[in-house]
Amino acid sequence: MKKFAIILSGCGVYDGSEIHESTMAMLAIKKHGCDYELFAPEKMQYDVINHLTGQPSDENRNVLVEAARIGRGEVKDLKNLKASDFDILLIPGGFGAAKNLSTYAIDGANMQVDKELERVILEFNNAKKPIGAMCIAPVIIAKVIPGVLVTIGQDLKTAEDIKALGANHKNTNKAEIAIDEKNKVATTPCYMLSSTIADIYDGAYNLISSLLNMV
Amino acid sequence: MKKFAIILSGCGVYDGSEIHESTMAMLAIKKHGCDYELFAPEKMQYDVINHLTGQPSDENRNVLVEAARIGRGEVKDLKNLKASDFDILLIPGGFGAAKNLSTYAIDGANMQVDKELERVILEFNNAKKPIGAMCIAPVIIAKVIPGVLVTIGQDLKTAEDIKALGANHKNTNKAEIAIDEKNKVATTPCYMLSSTIADIYDGAYNLISSLLNMV
Repeated sequence: MKKFAIILSGCGVYDGSEIHESTMAMLAIKKHGCDYELFAPEKMQYDVINHLTGQPSDENRNVLVEAARIGRGEVKDLKNLKASDFDILLIPGGFGAAKNLSTYAIDGANMQVDKELERVILEFNNAKKPIGAMCIAPVIIAKVIPGVLVTIGQDLKTAEDIKALGANHKNTNKAEIAIDEKNKVATTPCYMLSSTIADIYDGAYNLISSLLNMV
Repeated sequence: MKKFAIILSGCGVYDGSEIHESTMAMLAIKKHGCDYELFAPEKMQYDVINHLTGQPSDENRNVLVEAARIGRGEVKDLKNLKASDFDILLIPGGFGAAKNLSTYAIDGANMQVDKELERVILEFNNAKKPIGAMCIAPVIIAKVIPGVLVTIGQDLKTAEDIKALGANHKNTNKAEIAIDEKNKVATTPCYMLSSTIADIYDGAYNLISSLLNMV
């Protein structure tokens, strides 16, 4: 039974992990007969967005504490994640990937990646273990793994940023997967394209299949 | 295409809607070729629980605003829900159903139900439109519809409370559905039994099938 480490970045599309992408990935992993554990960085969120209005709130929330909502309490500090304990790494999307796991939403192609996450990605990559990313999270992989091929769907500006980071971008449609065999990286656009929750499940399912093919 | 109204109660198992139950229900509805809209009451949560520690926090959060995290912003005030606009009503579980949609977690069999939700349940019931509930949410149906048959799995105390409310309880296993044909009510235990997210999807799928059979 292959085991996935899933990296969450909060709870909610506008300031954390996209909830549908996270839970559809968890379901898809179980449907493939595999298991997962959840991790998130122990740090404050970049911001808190009122998801009803889309406006910033003056609240402060912790990435790990909010991620625990998606995990029903079962989420561990990212600093305790070792690639040797898992077969595959997976990063769902949501603005949390671009605000809490990296600074992409603020700095664009001048982005920085959370140091613990960078360590984890390099550990999996150096161990030749597959890495998957959904939605906007592939920009993080583009920053950390030189020359990697990823997809974020069809958004021109983000695709240009990925090329500016020294990586390659492939345009994809709903539920389609971009595969980099050499780097063992698989990515899918999810809500970077207009989608239903069923499209997100299809993309997650195809992504898990592609990742398992590279183990 | 049948349309479901889904009632959320926040975002997270310990103080709001159970996230897996909510998203698995949404996926199951789409997989049946149907559609849904999300609703939640515009009120403050009973409490805010730190989902990492399980302890109460001193924060204040709004049920509708937090429910918008599950809905990616697309959630409406419960007071605008009319049974005439929908075919089926669905209430996922989580402690929000027992703290925000009702007072069951505080008052047990002496519980009160949110007045708008009570109105909505009676509207669907009077219109002979099916009502589904997951996990702990069936206690709400037990309070509002006299003599209804529901399940919350196998928890003895909760089953006794349901009988004290004048309703009937049927013990069920994972992903099993209790059906009350006369009242057009279908219920399933979800995380009231030890389950994986795949079990929750199976229960949600079976629940949606049962509800569509009663339209």
